[in-house]
Order: sequence, then C-alpha cells, then structure tokens
Amino acid sequence: METAKIRLCVEHPLGEGQTVPLDRDQAHYLFGVMRQVAGAAIALFNGRDGEWQAEVVDAGKRGGILVCRTQSKPQGGPADVWLLFAPIKKARTDFIVEKAAEMGAARILPVQTDFTNAERIRRDRLQAHAVEAAEQCGNTYVPEVADLTKLDRLLADWPEGRRLMFCDEALADTDAAQNGLTGAPRGPWAILIGPEGGFSEAERTRLRSLPFAHSVQLGPRILRADTAAVAALTLWQAALGDWS
Amino acid sequence: METAKIRLCVEHPLGEGQTVPLDRDQAHYLFGVMRQVAGAAIALFNGRDGEWQAEVVDAGKRGGILVCRTQSKPQGGPADVWLLFAPIKKARTDFIVEKAAEMGAARILPVQTDFTNAERIRRDRLQAHAVEAAEQCGNTYVPEVADLTKLDRLLADWPEGRRLMFCDEALADTDAAQNGLTGAPRGPWAILIGPEGGFSEAERTRLRSLPFAHSVQLGPRILRADTAAVAALTLWQAALGDWS
Repeated sequence: METAKIRLCVEHPLGEGQTVPLDRDQAHYLFGVMRQVAGAAIALFNGRDGEWQAEVVDAGKRGGILVCRTQSKPQGGPADVWLLFAPIKKARTDFIVEKAAEMGAARILPVQTDFTNAERIRRDRLQAHAVEAAEQCGNTYVPEVADLTKLDRLLADWPEGRRLMFCDEALADTDAAQNGLTGAPRGPWAILIGPEGGFSEAERTRLRSLPFAHSVQLGPRILRADTAAVAALTLWQAALGDWS
Repeated sequence: METAKIRLCVEHPLGEGQTVPLDRDQAHYLFGVMRQVAGAAIALFNGRDGEWQAEVVDAGKRGGILVCRTQSKPQGGPADVWLLFAPIKKARTDFIVEKAAEMGAARILPVQTDFTNAERIRRDRLQAHAVEAAEQCGNTYVPEVADLTKLDRLLADWPEGRRLMFCDEALADTDAAQNGLTGAPRGPWAILIGPEGGFSEAERTRLRSLPFAHSVQLGPRILRADTAAVAALTLWQAALGDWS
C-alpha cells in the first residue's frame, strides 16, 4: 500500500485493524470527486488517535468502509493559542478560519466588537473550512470554531492564566516599533485581531488596561484582518509556539 | 479640510499647490463609486513625493482636478526584500500579490518552477492589485510586479549581494526546527515560496547548494502558498525589515 495523498478527518475511533465506515458525503468526496477505488490508501485522523494509513475495502455510492493499517503520525496537540477575530465579509472570514487552522490555532473565536457589523455567523460552514484546512495542512487535530460572542462578555469572563496578544493597529505608524512578545512567558495565550474599522476608543482603553493583555504592533502598515491573523500567528508560533 | 479617508496612487508629481489631473478611471472611481464632490479631501501618493492631502477642485464624469495642500507623510522606501512565488490558481495568485504589497515587499516576481502549471500571468491585473493594496494599507510606494520568469534563469542571473530566504516545505515535519534568519545579515534579500506541489528534487538540491540561499522552515504544517507568503514576510520583516 503506497502512502496516502488524500487526508480525511473522521469522527470514528482509529487503531490497528479498526474499520471505519464512511457517511454519504465522505463517500461522495472520496469515490465520486476524488475517484478512489477499493485498495486505495487514505490517511485518516480524528483529533484523538493520531494519523493512520487506511485502505479502502468497500467503495459505494452511499457509503464505504476503510480499514486502518499503520499509524503514520502520533496525535499532535495544538499549541494553546486561540484566535479572536471580528467577522468581516464572507470570503475574508472564510480565509481567516482557513489560515488560523493552517497556522495551528487551537480554537477560533469570532467576536462582536463595537465596529463589527456581523450579527451572526454560519458556525457550521466555518467549522467545515477548519476541517478542510486541517486535512490539507497535515494537522492531526481540527480547531473548534466557537459561536459568535460579544468581545465585552468574553473579556469579562476571561480564563485565569490566559494571556492576550492584542494586535493594536493604532500602534502602527508610531516611531516606537515594539514586539510585545519579546520576553513574554509561555503558557495559554489568545490573539485578538481588530475589525477592519479598528477598535473603538472605549475598547482600546479597556484592552490596554487589562493585566493579561500585551499590545503588539504588526509593522508600520495597516493590514487587512486576514493578513493580520497570519502575521500575528507567525509571530506567536515563532516566539512561543510550535515553530520555536 | 478634514483628513482624507480615501487614498489614491497617481503618476503625476506631487508638491505644495501642485494640480493633479485625474484620468477617466480615477474620476469614475472617486466621483462615481465613492461619491466624492468638490471640496473633498483625498490622500495622494506616487511612490516618489510622499503622501499629500489634496482637495478636489473639479469633479467631472470624464476627469477631474485635485490640488495638493499639505504633505501628510514623507516618502517611505520599502525594505529591500523581493517576493518570488510560483503562480497558482487565479484567486490565490491575486491574494499573494495583495499580501506581498501589504507586507511591504519591494518587488514581486512570479516564477516558473518545475511543478508550476502557469505559462503566463496577467501582469497588468496583478499590478493593479498591488496598487489597490498599497492604497489600502497606507504605503507611499507600490511594489513592481515583474513578468513571469523561469526560476532557473533568475537564479543563474542572481544579483550580487542579494540573499535568498528559501522556504523549504521539505523541512516541515522534521525534528530540527530551525529559523534560518537567526543571525542573518541585513541588506538586500529575496524570499522564495514554493509552488503548491513543492519543488522538484533537482530544484531543491540546486537551491540548497546556492551560497546566497538560507533554508527556512515555516513551522511543522504544510502551508498554502498565500499563507506561506505572509508568514515568510512576517519573519523577515520582524528580523531584518521595517518591523524590527
């Protein structure tokens, strides 16, 4: 059996000799779209049991069965970093979720800020984007996409011990270039990316006064939210996460 | 005159009291799409004279005239970093150009690699994306988008003294996490992002043997080319560029 090129995230337990039934959508994708047949090798992961090389033993139109042969990766845990962002236009929001999964965020939290227009998100659709990105980038886990929450409420209930990297575009264009992660401690973190219209003065004042918040400047230019998400996760992963 | 929210890249010289004629497309954008009228403030830059607050003195359907009042930013130069990337699907290629401009690349060079399918690019369309990104992010310059060139040829004619940050996805998933920029010297650089199918073995062998190339790993996951472009530019700007 050759090494699988296709990776699939499943719910089912994985282990040596374990059979894994496919649902209709998965069967359609694997056998219809990707033209896989019995005997083909597929890599499976479920967020708990690592990555397994599995073989297609039954390929049907409405379902199928795979059998796990050998473990190809141990279960990896994400570095403990959340990404908080204000939903923007649909395509850019999809991108942020995709990028956050690729960059190894553990949780993705859409937040309502004073200047956020979004009243609701399609959580299921965003979660599907996170699954797809995890399949593509070689992850063994999928970050959870949380429901849309008011930033105020999230900050009021902030978990003990979790630090916040607050990407403050009002710091851009100042002489005092700073990277707030220099010397910052490891441990649980979250990254907050501002909405396209920026934070309100009230939000900014509150964020700067929080004892767990670290203001970080993402360079001298104003970045779009999707660019800022990748840049901030890069700085964090390189300084404190699984790139370091 | 209030501070302009709209920024426009023009060809015309800028300076105190300088009149700036608008062409038809610019007039359509400013007065048609953005509904600006005589008296409105617009920020102008041309890549040479910094950013100027200008006032609309004539708003027509086929043209218009602005007058520069005060300089609001001195001319900034980009840090001397090029982005080399292999064109991929249209939307992702557009994104890479947008992101490169936002992240402050000085030049953007689409390259043909062994596994690149693209035979040609729409240079004018990509250049327009770079202009739009520069207008949006507050830059006073626009990176030039070069014509599609074979990577082999570019490396054969490589400019004296320019270093190459080679983002090698074959380094991903190895234990030896490394950041090839630690201790790297300042000066002219280029960043090379691989195509979605990766580099060929021949290309990888050649790239690793080049005396001016520094291999850099972008974390343990396989990044899409547009994600990799932002991540690599973030590492470079933070270590050697205008974020440091």
